Amino acid sequence: MKSFEFWFDFGSTASYLAWTQLPALETATKSKAVLRPMLLGGVFQATGNQSPANIPAKGKYMFVDFERFAKRYGVQFNRNPNFPINTLLFMRGAIALQSKNDPKFLDYCHAIFNAIWVQSLNMNDPATAAKGLQNAGFDAQTLVALANEPATKDALKAATQTAVERGVFGAPTFFVGDEMFWGQDRLDFVKEALQKQAVSLP
Amino acid sequence: MKSFEFWFDFGSTASYLAWTQLPALETATKSKAVLRPMLLGGVFQATGNQSPANIPAKGKYMFVDFERFAKRYGVQFNRNPNFPINTLLFMRGAIALQSKNDPKFLDYCHAIFNAIWVQSLNMNDPATAAKGLQNAGFDAQTLVALANEPATKDALKAATQTAVERGVFGAPTFFVGDEMFWGQDRLDFVKEALQKQAVSLP
Repeated sequence: MKSFEFWFDFGSTASYLAWTQLPALETATKSKAVLRPMLLGGVFQATGNQSPANIPAKGKYMFVDFERFAKRYGVQFNRNPNFPINTLLFMRGAIALQSKNDPKFLDYCHAIFNAIWVQSLNMNDPATAAKGLQNAGFDAQTLVALANEPATKDALKAATQTAVERGVFGAPTFFVGDEMFWGQDRLDFVKEALQKQAVSLP
Repeated sequence: MKSFEFWFDFGSTASYLAWTQLPALETATKSKAVLRPMLLGGVFQATGNQSPANIPAKGKYMFVDFERFAKRYGVQFNRNPNFPINTLLFMRGAIALQSKNDPKFLDYCHAIFNAIWVQSLNMNDPATAAKGLQNAGFDAQTLVALANEPATKDALKAATQTAVERGVFGAPTFFVGDEMFWGQDRLDFVKEALQKQAVSLP
């Protein structure tokens, strides 16, 4: 089956919007998204790039733009007044669940994206985050313990470094083979690249 | 007739790509583009924004992205090895011709965009620029004299300041009424906004 990589950070608005479109993209291209958690803050630090929100005029416009896409996609989206959210713990949790092949990995991703970009929870606040996770069927203490394992920390560092080495400077970033596509507004190019790709035999 | 504003700088690759699509957009929406020259460097200075080319990983990708769009649009596009081009004189020339209602204003815009993004001329070099203009039917000396008039300098400064006051932080930027759209990759949203707009009676 064909596949594409989806590099993301829960704190990235554009990652959330792209995330909502993955099932349709998978269906349309008969391919599978390979989720690649990374720490966007680490990517910014390594590349010298920064959040558009750091430029006041750009930050203001970006949310207008995101709302236009949310409307086009027909998906729920709310500006989180607590933006930016520090996602270090959540990205560590993601990579930990994924590396353990935990069957709840996808549910976890959905719960975090939803908590930040639909429910607008202040996930910077540990008590709110714990409650948000609990409501989604996750135990915060277990997740924090998992996130704090040295192997988890190393895995997220390594993934972020891999992203940077492959040319990633923002989120979300897609790869179809070695072809890189940046932004939730490049889904049509990702689709085209997948449709051109020959199906690889198992 | 309906209209939309197109704020641009000749040195912006994305402005060039959008420029190639204006006639089709005008036809599809039965509207008229109002060209608004501005100095992108001035916009960057005022807003704190910067060229994506300043971030090496982003700069590298941007040209891949632009080539994908050029291919999609079916237009000529060549990376100019002399990028970035200092466009101060050319933007002054544009605003001078426009303010004098010179019938060659559109030809001038076409000539400069073409010299930079199709012919890849080193327009930073005065002799090359003069020759490029001459080949397009313009006299460089006349244009330089026009560009150096105090009224011309003031007009470009005022236009750039107006752009910033209206929320512009990059190029190209479109306005449909007060709705702002940034980027050559938002043409479809501009089109939708124009199609929704009621035709204003004369």
